[in-house]
Amino acid sequence: MTLIIDCHGHYTTAPPAHDAWRSTQRVAFDAGLPFLPYPAISDDEIRESVEANQLRLLRERGADMTIFSPRASAMAHHIGDEAVSQAWTIACNDLIKRVVDLYPETFIGACMLPQSPGVPIAHSVAELERCVTELGFVGCNLNPDPSGGHFTAPPLTDKSWYPLYEKMVELDVPTMVHVSGSCNPAFHATGAYYIAADTTAFMQFIQGDLFRDFPTLRFIIPHGGGAVPYHWGRYRGLADMLQQPPLGGHVMKNVYFDTCVYHQPGIDLLFEVIDIENILFGSEMVGAVRGIDPMTGHYFDDTKRYVEAADLTPEQRHSVFEGNARRVYPRLDAQLKGRGI
Amino acid sequence: MTLIIDCHGHYTTAPPAHDAWRSTQRVAFDAGLPFLPYPAISDDEIRESVEANQLRLLRERGADMTIFSPRASAMAHHIGDEAVSQAWTIACNDLIKRVVDLYPETFIGACMLPQSPGVPIAHSVAELERCVTELGFVGCNLNPDPSGGHFTAPPLTDKSWYPLYEKMVELDVPTMVHVSGSCNPAFHATGAYYIAADTTAFMQFIQGDLFRDFPTLRFIIPHGGGAVPYHWGRYRGLADMLQQPPLGGHVMKNVYFDTCVYHQPGIDLLFEVIDIENILFGSEMVGAVRGIDPMTGHYFDDTKRYVEAADLTPEQRHSVFEGNARRVYPRLDAQLKGRGI
Repeated sequence: MTLIIDCHGHYTTAPPAHDAWRSTQRVAFDAGLPFLPYPAISDDEIRESVEANQLRLLRERGADMTIFSPRASAMAHHIGDEAVSQAWTIACNDLIKRVVDLYPETFIGACMLPQSPGVPIAHSVAELERCVTELGFVGCNLNPDPSGGHFTAPPLTDKSWYPLYEKMVELDVPTMVHVSGSCNPAFHATGAYYIAADTTAFMQFIQGDLFRDFPTLRFIIPHGGGAVPYHWGRYRGLADMLQQPPLGGHVMKNVYFDTCVYHQPGIDLLFEVIDIENILFGSEMVGAVRGIDPMTGHYFDDTKRYVEAADLTPEQRHSVFEGNARRVYPRLDAQLKGRGI
Repeated sequence: MTLIIDCHGHYTTAPPAHDAWRSTQRVAFDAGLPFLPYPAISDDEIRESVEANQLRLLRERGADMTIFSPRASAMAHHIGDEAVSQAWTIACNDLIKRVVDLYPETFIGACMLPQSPGVPIAHSVAELERCVTELGFVGCNLNPDPSGGHFTAPPLTDKSWYPLYEKMVELDVPTMVHVSGSCNPAFHATGAYYIAADTTAFMQFIQGDLFRDFPTLRFIIPHGGGAVPYHWGRYRGLADMLQQPPLGGHVMKNVYFDTCVYHQPGIDLLFEVIDIENILFGSEMVGAVRGIDPMTGHYFDDTKRYVEAADLTPEQRHSVFEGNARRVYPRLDAQLKGRGI
């Protein structure tokens, strides 16, 4: 019996009052006024927001659990300043905690971080610690470009990121590399910016030696690893040209890809070139692409179907759906074991 | 008998005097001094620079021709100002013309453009016209981000690009979308920036309606279309979500991908999801990845091997190696016909 764990779900359907508060926050910031108090949101509003969406789709598709984090495109670390980002982050993470408490068998939390352009990542460490030790979250989302599409931050291998990595290692939590909305007209968020950032992060890991300093640090690169599996030969060749070790030992002991690739040929390629231990089931639903594929009659983001149709052994399928997630997210594994699962 | 035409070759091995002049140009610009005269470069120096490299590899691999353009990473439109870019562009394009004149059966020219951040693209039109009508070039390379990694230019569908497109249509030449070197530490040029820009350009075409205004305009997106074929379901789904027409009519009558994908599974995916009419043989050699793949014993960038190993009919293979290039580059076709080929 395999538990089907979706490692990549965002709360894209949060109650309107939550987003309305965000709008007032932006207005207050621009006007130099204090933020309004966060609104009362009832449990029923939260139930309604997920039962018709994530829970319905999980049920219909036959998945069991989702590692659930705040809506990625709405993190918008480029808006306002550090205080704006701090307050919004706490509101978003607390809302995730409420979803988890209402549906503890289905959702488990991953937090966003209160990043802000130019602000040291050390300022995000306390919120990570709060979410993991107080709220029971099992991972976080790290934005490699808090500028929202100008890529002004140093590479993820730069020592300026190390304070977060030290805390991640201490807490034994992984992070998903995930940019937010784009304020750059060149980049469509889900169609260009996300994929570009995923690909860029992987190349940064090739160029650097981050995992020599942090042998147990773990990153999930979402959206199937951006362009990486399709260009796997290019990346193997670039590592060689840069006189770095082969990718297996240099990067792939610490980096994982999800299955958010919305067609069968892409998923098949992913499984063909990437070791099964490095692939975690994910769907990103309800998220980037919500429609039904006219070529199949099924939702584009019903990635469980593609994984089930891929040429995998039962053991491999178990790794992708459950085993790898429990290994990459040890705090998820511990919670499941605590429930006898 | 199929002619094997590589649509993507850069003069990455230009004689040292050419690059040395570029260095003096940068120093002169910084010092506010006039540029030195362009150095004398002998035909022998040019012969030497290609015979041991591109010509040798073409011969070894059994390819016939290369559409040859200045080194992409050295275009560096972000360096200096418009006058710097104009002078460097003319020097680079003129050098390509000399290679073509020395080996007219093997090389045919494509030009770079004298772009500069914030300078209207109309200022690049005269150089395109010179290269096509006076030097006999058959296409050009358009940099969608002359800032060198900050993506400060508007999307390629923006009307500010139209003066170039009007001239391209008039001259009936296509363009390859190709960024240059990165001055942004986040982006490794050939491992992150190129692939990100390719993917971003495609998404811009989905978002816009450029080909309604220019039904005969043609773009080659290199490096196998960036991440696009791997995420083909995502792009089909995003077109649907944006209420754009299906990609076949909306984008793929005007956009082509090359085969610069450096492993067999990637090439196989490309051919599986993209119509054969939209794929042009390319290798990018001698370029981004110069080593030998230890898994195959062959050069990573020997893409001819992958195409030959792909599951294609002889007619399909002919389209990829020759037919599509002659259709997308009508001035290439005309020159070949003029030679009775």
